[in-house]
Parts: sequence; C-alpha cells; structure tokens
Amino acid sequence: MNAVPSELLQQADRLSSDVVRPIPGSRKIFVEGSRPDIRVPMREIDLAKTPTIFGGEDNAPLAVYDCSGPYTDPSVEIDLSRGLAPLRARWIAERGDTEALAGLSSEFGRRREGDAKLDAVRFGNRPLPRRALAGANVTQMHYARRGIVTPEMEYIAIRENQRIEAIREAHLLNQHAGQSFGASIQKLITPEFVRDEVARGRAIIPNNINHPESEPMIIGRNFLTKVNANIGNSAVSSGIAEEVEKLVWSIRWGADTVMDLSTGKHIHETREWIIRNSPVPIGTVPIYQALEKVDGRAEELNWEIFRDTLIEQAEQGVDYFTIHAGVLLRYVPLTAKRVTGIVSRGGSILAKWCLAHHKENFLYTHFEEICEIMKAYDVAFSLGDGLRPGSIADANDAAQFGELETLGELTKIAWRHDVQTMIEGPGHVPMHLIKENMDKQLEVCGEAPFYTLGPLTTDIAPGYDHITSAIGAAMIGWYGTAMLCYVTPKEHLGLPNKNDVREGLMAYRIAAHAADLAKGHPGAQARDNAMSKARFEFRWEDQFNLGLDPERAREYHDETLPKDAHKTAHFCSMCGPHFCSMKITQDVRDYAAEHGVDEAAVLEAGMADKAAEFRQAGAEVYRKA
Amino acid sequence: MNAVPSELLQQADRLSSDVVRPIPGSRKIFVEGSRPDIRVPMREIDLAKTPTIFGGEDNAPLAVYDCSGPYTDPSVEIDLSRGLAPLRARWIAERGDTEALAGLSSEFGRRREGDAKLDAVRFGNRPLPRRALAGANVTQMHYARRGIVTPEMEYIAIRENQRIEAIREAHLLNQHAGQSFGASIQKLITPEFVRDEVARGRAIIPNNINHPESEPMIIGRNFLTKVNANIGNSAVSSGIAEEVEKLVWSIRWGADTVMDLSTGKHIHETREWIIRNSPVPIGTVPIYQALEKVDGRAEELNWEIFRDTLIEQAEQGVDYFTIHAGVLLRYVPLTAKRVTGIVSRGGSILAKWCLAHHKENFLYTHFEEICEIMKAYDVAFSLGDGLRPGSIADANDAAQFGELETLGELTKIAWRHDVQTMIEGPGHVPMHLIKENMDKQLEVCGEAPFYTLGPLTTDIAPGYDHITSAIGAAMIGWYGTAMLCYVTPKEHLGLPNKNDVREGLMAYRIAAHAADLAKGHPGAQARDNAMSKARFEFRWEDQFNLGLDPERAREYHDETLPKDAHKTAHFCSMCGPHFCSMKITQDVRDYAAEHGVDEAAVLEAGMADKAAEFRQAGAEVYRKA
Repeated sequence: MNAVPSELLQQADRLSSDVVRPIPGSRKIFVEGSRPDIRVPMREIDLAKTPTIFGGEDNAPLAVYDCSGPYTDPSVEIDLSRGLAPLRARWIAERGDTEALAGLSSEFGRRREGDAKLDAVRFGNRPLPRRALAGANVTQMHYARRGIVTPEMEYIAIRENQRIEAIREAHLLNQHAGQSFGASIQKLITPEFVRDEVARGRAIIPNNINHPESEPMIIGRNFLTKVNANIGNSAVSSGIAEEVEKLVWSIRWGADTVMDLSTGKHIHETREWIIRNSPVPIGTVPIYQALEKVDGRAEELNWEIFRDTLIEQAEQGVDYFTIHAGVLLRYVPLTAKRVTGIVSRGGSILAKWCLAHHKENFLYTHFEEICEIMKAYDVAFSLGDGLRPGSIADANDAAQFGELETLGELTKIAWRHDVQTMIEGPGHVPMHLIKENMDKQLEVCGEAPFYTLGPLTTDIAPGYDHITSAIGAAMIGWYGTAMLCYVTPKEHLGLPNKNDVREGLMAYRIAAHAADLAKGHPGAQARDNAMSKARFEFRWEDQFNLGLDPERAREYHDETLPKDAHKTAHFCSMCGPHFCSMKITQDVRDYAAEHGVDEAAVLEAGMADKAAEFRQAGAEVYRKA
Repeated sequence: MNAVPSELLQQADRLSSDVVRPIPGSRKIFVEGSRPDIRVPMREIDLAKTPTIFGGEDNAPLAVYDCSGPYTDPSVEIDLSRGLAPLRARWIAERGDTEALAGLSSEFGRRREGDAKLDAVRFGNRPLPRRALAGANVTQMHYARRGIVTPEMEYIAIRENQRIEAIREAHLLNQHAGQSFGASIQKLITPEFVRDEVARGRAIIPNNINHPESEPMIIGRNFLTKVNANIGNSAVSSGIAEEVEKLVWSIRWGADTVMDLSTGKHIHETREWIIRNSPVPIGTVPIYQALEKVDGRAEELNWEIFRDTLIEQAEQGVDYFTIHAGVLLRYVPLTAKRVTGIVSRGGSILAKWCLAHHKENFLYTHFEEICEIMKAYDVAFSLGDGLRPGSIADANDAAQFGELETLGELTKIAWRHDVQTMIEGPGHVPMHLIKENMDKQLEVCGEAPFYTLGPLTTDIAPGYDHITSAIGAAMIGWYGTAMLCYVTPKEHLGLPNKNDVREGLMAYRIAAHAADLAKGHPGAQARDNAMSKARFEFRWEDQFNLGLDPERAREYHDETLPKDAHKTAHFCSMCGPHFCSMKITQDVRDYAAEHGVDEAAVLEAGMADKAAEFRQAGAEVYRKA
C-alpha cells in the first residue's frame, strides 16, 4: 500500500479496520454475464441446517444485493492512492464514441492542476478525462432509445435479479411450510426490460464515462428502491481523509449512491479522491462549488463560472448533478409567508441571484446548454427541489408545486436530448399529504424517477429525524419513489459522524425494503422469509447474519445472553426456557402433520366435530410429553 | 425519604438522578377544573424572544401533554416506599358505590401476604382493596351510559385540550406569518364529548378503583394517539428495583400506559411496587402469572386459578387485562403452516391448553364471569391477539382474522356488561396490508379502540425494530389505531435496558405525533409550528427544548458546535455562516414586506411584468448589503 504524502490525508493511507472488517457470516460472490468482464458482485449469507426438532433440512445460502464494492472483498488489495480498478473502461472504449482528451477542459481544473501548493492534497493518479466525440451522445438513454443493450444494462439485470435466485432456493426449501412463490419466479428482470425502462425515462443509470470504477446500478420505480447517503465537509468541519472514509463506511451500510456535498476548502481535490475510490455513483450540487468560486456572493454567480464548474466536475466523473433550474423568479415571493421560507441551500442561492438581478434563474435560461454538457459525459440530471418545504406548515404549497411543474417541463427538454433525468422531492410532509406529492410528480414529470429526502413526517424530534423521515420515506417509496435520500440523527443539529451515517443508512435500508415489500417487488420477501424461518427455528447465528446489521444484532443478543451456548439455545431471553411460544407452535405443527389437519378441512368442519377429533387423537400427543 | 429494607430493592431506595432530573427549559404546571382537586398537569416550555432581525416579537410558552407524573415536579418529595398520593380516592369514594374490603379476596394474595419470607420484598404501605358494592357496576362506561360526567372525564377533557390552548397562542404569534388556525380552535374537547365516546365504546378510560394514584387518560381514536411501554422481568433477568425505575424512566419519555409483563419471581410483589408508584394506567397479561402458579405447565391451567389471579390483580389496581379469549380451538390448526406459527406468549399458552384438553379456550367459555369481575373494579379489557402474525409471510391470514372476528363478538358481550374494551392488533405486517387490519377491526369490533404492536413492516432488521415498527405504527395510527405498543431496539434479541426504553419511546412518540398530524387532530401541529419558527429564527435553545428529547438534541448540537456562543449563532454547522438559506429567506421576506408582494398578485401577474418590478425595486435591497 502506497503512502499518501499529506497530513490532511494521513488517515486515508489506511482505512480504519472497522470500515473494512468483513461482514460476518457471508462472502462476496460474482455472477458472470454474457462476457467474462461482466462480473456482478453479491453477498452470499451462509445458513445453518435446521435443527432436527424442526425438520433437520439444509438451508441454502442467501445472496443479497451488495453495494460495498471491493472493500469487503478480502482478495482485493485496496490502495486509496491508486483508486479502484476501472471495470467499465473497456465497455466505454469499445463503443468508439468517446475520446481521451489531452488535458482538462475546465479552466478552474487546469488552475488547480498547476498549483504546486496543492500537490500535498492532490490525488496523484488521475486518468485523462474522456468526452464524447463531436456530435456524439454517450448517454445510456441514447443507447437505449436506439435499441442497444449495453454491458451496463446486462450487469444491472443480473444485479436486480439476485433476489429471484434467492427466492428460488427459498421456494425449494420452504415447500414443507406451504409457501408459494410461483408467481414471483416468473418475473425475472431482463436486460431488455432495463433498456426499455431507461429509454422510456422511467429509470436512469448514473454512469459518467469518467467514472469507470463504478459498478452499474439503476434508479427507477420498477426496480429495487435505492438509498443515497450524503457526505461532505463544510467550512466548519471535516477533512478529506474523513470524507473518503465516510464514503467507504456509507457503502458498507448500504448506500447505493453517495452525494458529495462539500462546501469547504479543497472541494475539487476531495471530490477526486472520492470518485477514484467509489464503486457507487457520485452526485454533487455544482452550485455549491460555483458559489465558493465567487467567495460566497450569490449575486456574483454567472453562467460562465457555472458552466466551467459543470465541465470540471463532469471530467472528474460525477455521475449526477443536482440542478436547481426550477427555482423561477416568479416562485420566489411565494415563499415569503412560509414558516420556514426556503430551506434548500441551492434553492436559496438561486433565489438570491434571481432577486439580485431581477432576472430569470440562469440555470433555467441555459438549460439546453447544460443538456449539451450532460450528454457529452453521460451525467444524469437530478432536478433539484429548491423550494421544498422545510416544515409541516409549508408542505404541498404553491411554491413547492409550482417548481415541480417547471421540473416536469425541464424533464421533457432533457429527454429531447436523451439526457437521463430524475426529480428531487421533499422535505417535510405530514403523512396524509405524502401521496399527493408522488401522484403529482408522476403526472407532471412523465414518470421520471422521483428521488426524495425523507420526507420528515413531523418537525418535533431533533436527534431522531432518521426516524421521523424513515416513516415518510417508506411510504413514498411504496407509492413509487425510486431513490430515498437518507437523513441522519444529526439532521438540523450538526454534521453526521460515522455512527450517524450507520444509523441513517439502517433506517433507510429499512424504509427501502419495506417499500419493496409493499410494492410486491419480485423476490424482496425472500430475505424476510429466510429470517423468519431462522427465527422460528432458533438459529441465532443465522438471524444475526441475515439482518441488515449483523454486528448490532449479535451485540444486543450478547447483552442479555452472552454465552456461546445461548447462540444455539432453543429459547430467548424474552420469555425464558419454559415459556416459549415457538416450542408450542412446533407442538401444533407436529400435531397437524401427524393427523393430517389442513386449513380447508378445519374451516369446513364445525368446531364440535373438530373438538371430538382432537380429543381422540391429541391425548396421545400430549401423553408423550 | 424512607429506606426500603431489602437488598433486592436497594436501588429503588432512591431513583437514579438521571431518571428524575428536570426536563430542560420547562416546568410542570397545573390547570384547574371545576373543583380544586381536579388539577391537570402539563409541561410548559419557555420560549425566547424572536431575534430582532426576524421581527423581535415575544413567543408565549407552549404547554405540552405530560405523563411523567410527580417525578418531574420538584415540589413533590418522592418516597417509593409510600407510593404516590391517591389523587382519585375522593372521587371514587364520593360515588358511594364501592366499599373498602376487610382484606384481600384472592386466596393467592392472602398466601403471599402471610408469607414472612416475603417481608423483605413486600411493599409495606398497601391500602385495603376496594370493590363495587354487591350489584353495583363501577366502570366509567357504566357512568357514561347513565349520562354522568365523572371528574375523570373532566380531567381528560382538560388534558386533551392543552394543545388547543397552545394553538391559540401560536395563532396570535404567527399571524404575521399568515398561518391560520381558525378551524382547529373551534374543536375544543368537552367533558361531554369524552363521556359520549366512552358510552359509545369508542374510547376507554383505564382507571381501576384500586389504582387511585393514576392520572386519568383516555384511549380512543378521536383523542391524541397514545403509546404503551412494556416493562417486566423474566426468569432470565431483571429485579424489582430495576422494574420500578424502568416505569419512571418510561413515563419520563412519554409512555401513556405501562404494561408489566413480568414472568419471573416475585411477580406479585413487583406489581404492587409498580402500581403504587405509577401515575399512568398499568396493564398486565394475567395468564402469565397463572402459568407461574402451575409451574409453567399450560395444560394444568384452569378457570379457578385464573379467576383467583384476576381478582388478585384487580385488587392490586391493574387498570387493564390482556385476555386472549379469541384463541379458539378451531383456529389453532390454522397456524400449523405458518412460517412462524404462534408468536404471542399468551396465544401459545392457550393454544396448548386447548389442544391438551380438546376443549374450547376457558377464557372464552367463562367470558361473562370475567366481565363480572371487570365491572366490580373497573378493569378494562384489552382483548389479546394471541394469533397475531410473527412474520411478513403470515400477515393477514385466516388464523389472525378468524380471531379478530371472535374478538368483535366478545366486545359486544363486554359492552352488554358496560365493561370498557379495547382490541389488540398485530404484529408483523407489510405496509400494503396495514389498512386492511384497521378497516376490519373497526368493522367487526364496533369501533372499539385498537391497540397495536407496531406493526413491523419488515422482518430483516434485528437491532432496529423500533424503526421497522414505528413506520407501521405511524401508518396504523393515522388509519385509526388509538394506542401504539412500543417496540424497542432489543425486540427479538433480548430484554430492553434503560437506553432501549428511551429509544423505543422516542420512536413511538414520533409515530403517535405523526399520526395525530395526519388525522388532523386539533392543535397537534402547534408544537411543529413552534419548532419550525424557532428553527427559522435560529433560536437553538428553543429548538432543543421544544423537541421530544431536549437533552439528545443539545448533545448532538454540541458535538459539532460546542461553544455556548454557537447556541445563539445565526447559522449552523451544516452550511456554515456564509451559506445560510434561512438568511436568504429573510431577505426575500424583507423584500416582500417592503414592496407589498403577495402571493395572489404574483400568481396573477405575468413573469415578465414581475421581473421589471423586481429590477426597479430590488436594486435598492441589495445595494444595502
């Protein structure tokens, strides 16, 4: 492992062991596609045999979606100063529609590159940027609309299907329990389905050609619900090393994409380190950096500075940009009577600019030029909701819905350029107003993927907003949101530390999975079923390992029942050994199996008859005990 | 403070200081009713003046619901060995329909009383039990149906209204922000409304005449959503002192009722300590203790032992009993093919009994006799869902809904006796199946209050089931559940410690409040609005104090911005001083106020006209900066 020559980066030299420790009871596997360089990672969880008293059968391992990248693969040597292997490089090159540039196109980028003072914090091994050949469009949407199935699309189809494989196995194993998964098994996701959804605009594949290290993933409501984690420093806190480690920590706990929201020093250099070491798509809000370039004076922003920032970041490999092009001049006064006004940083910057210049938002007026940049690198739009409500009182108001309509208009413009687009959503919204958000978004944005922050369902729980918002996130995910932006317990209070990132992600993995169950996503229930079967059979190790956070589950179990012997105990601390409902259920099962009692028969027969039958037969059952 | 003469109880001698420390930034107040002994506690949160740059107005204190009892009242001296003051004693006596008994009616109770070995763990100052005079019915439902408004009902009306008072104040203060609360203000809850809801069976007041220490509260869907916390030891862990402290800890964090689910030693004595020191209603599951009396052998249970247990507990003052009278013999085989069978302890005990004897559940066959006991002490039914699903796979199945129909039938029998009744609900249910539970419960149980455990919306997150279940709880609360039984992070893994109780209650206070907002409960939004206004105005101390957990909020803020000066800073760590959207919104507000821009005008005027107007006027606004 090479040393990184900087004090700022010293911690990045080697990631903390807690960030890369193996995930217990499982291993990284790869499923190969139609060509050997399509190798889709999954995490396979080993399961123990069912105890003899419950039937004694084998339980096949369960494969689960894995966005932790090479960091949890013990066969890969991690060197942050080199970055990850560019697994998509060949696919991009093969398409023959891009070229490696001689140098950076961004003026700002070149200036940073030439500044010797930055050598100490600079990522040393950055590749030459690529760009579309003149006139070419290199977006996955463009390929999809021409009928092409890219390796990225095939990769995604395999990735989204792993739960189907799991359910197949669960099906075989659970036959004795009468579970039927037949219907789900038919609904395999094909590469062609991925293509069609992207072509239709209902899903996006955020995969900048300058981020070949990324493992392809898809955001759309007919796929698994995804989760984004925000990281990033501010003027007040946090350095580069900490941010890279937060990235790795985030994907360990299940972040499908990560947004770098840095607003402090070394914003350019931090981003480079993050992208080169990220197996997941990276999103940014370019207006934050543009504002830094004008020393925080919003009124001094202009199209030229912003354009250069877009190109700078596109050539670093940012996969999606939040663009607040819907904050129109006429909407700004609609926020004046709100309880919390404008709470989006991007939204407030643009509102200030609009008022200062008495002009329409320059992101709106230059939107087609932005599209031209997006399609030269395949950066996806995340159309920002700059006027999202910051309190229950402001939910679903005229400013918010006015902006949403403009985002719908912009989506159609982006689609004319074959630029992939998703739409950001609120915010703070009470439960009874959530569905209206989703329905309106689907209607006015032509079913482009919705990407929501929460929403938070109450304002009164600072310190617990991962929970207030997980409630809203689960619901809006069920209604159709494709990606959920996490909220940590520090929301409204401070910057999240590593533990907050874990807590936030766990709450959001729960919300996303609850949404997948409620949507009836094929195969989503396989993991619940495997968990519940393990629970019923007192396979404690399997319960821990099948959970979203095996270490936490084990730690909690240890608190009450610390001994190893308790991990195989056929009881739990809640009821004690003589009070176990699972044991009694097994008696019921044994009874039913022995006497051929089935549901239909019981329902049809009158209770009186049944009682007689039980009396006759049951005496034997219980005499044994 | 008297010493408690027992090793087991030594920690109860004095409650830990963290359990009784004052709640920051607030004080206990009392609102008096029509007679001086109706004194309804509330917690009043002090709020600072709005900073001058945001308008400089005063912010009146906000009163919030308070179930923490005398423990947070510095003027009350707590002595656990004496118990709390019997604030309802006079009301009960005045009604003239009860008598103090010469001794305990329960044989078991008398045996414990006479056992000198128990002196060391016995609560020393227990009052003589009361019972209804022969032929009298002392339930709040009975009074309500005769048109009587009891002091308990008046107390409750005042208690439920405090948010209305708060909203009145918020209304006056927020007029400048254009908030309109006119409609809510009309919807005051009257004592007569409380009476009518209880008479109709749509709400219950769990207030055993032998628990005069309890502060009256109501459970019904037209009132604030309530939260229950479970405490209790098991054969494996936890002693008396720990349980009393958990009670006090639970109500501090917002438990409206507490269930004592002890199954271990000293179950009778533990309960006495808990009830004598509890200002909230206490619920139990009597079958647990009955089972202890037959050494854990379910098949040896019988009506006589159970009846004696009911009387024993009723004379101690238990306010509601979970009675699993709906676990009918014919439903038991319906669970055989479930993934997780029967997961309710009570359900499994009765299932085992039914099978062992080939007889109908004795709680069902003796239900009218149980009603006779309930009405002699005013114990409310919590009809248990012994067949609730323990996994996503088992949700909403024939066993669950079969039992629910029987609970509906039993509700009508209880109501014929004027016995207050609520119905317990699931369990593990995916989001899309939650509403069906609520709708079916309302239909078959005649709108008796629903009391649900979660439901958990996925099985795969051991260690985080307070979150998986808070999602389901918030939703079912919105749909109409009257009380939510909390789940702690230790669910499925171990017994909750104090921190788990806090985490579980916070998640559930969030769920309950989110439900109240979504139901449009009058006044519920006042606290959100006060919080959001404080947030917008950077009143950090007020934000902490208005939150559900002021200490946690402050602690998190301190982590990033530890200095006292930061508590008055007009920025936060998330964006830093030059990046503040709140500041920009204030610019917009100032602009709008100065130039008379209102929403309607903006919406009507075309954008072009408006731009001109901004150009003209705005130059001045920003030249000032």
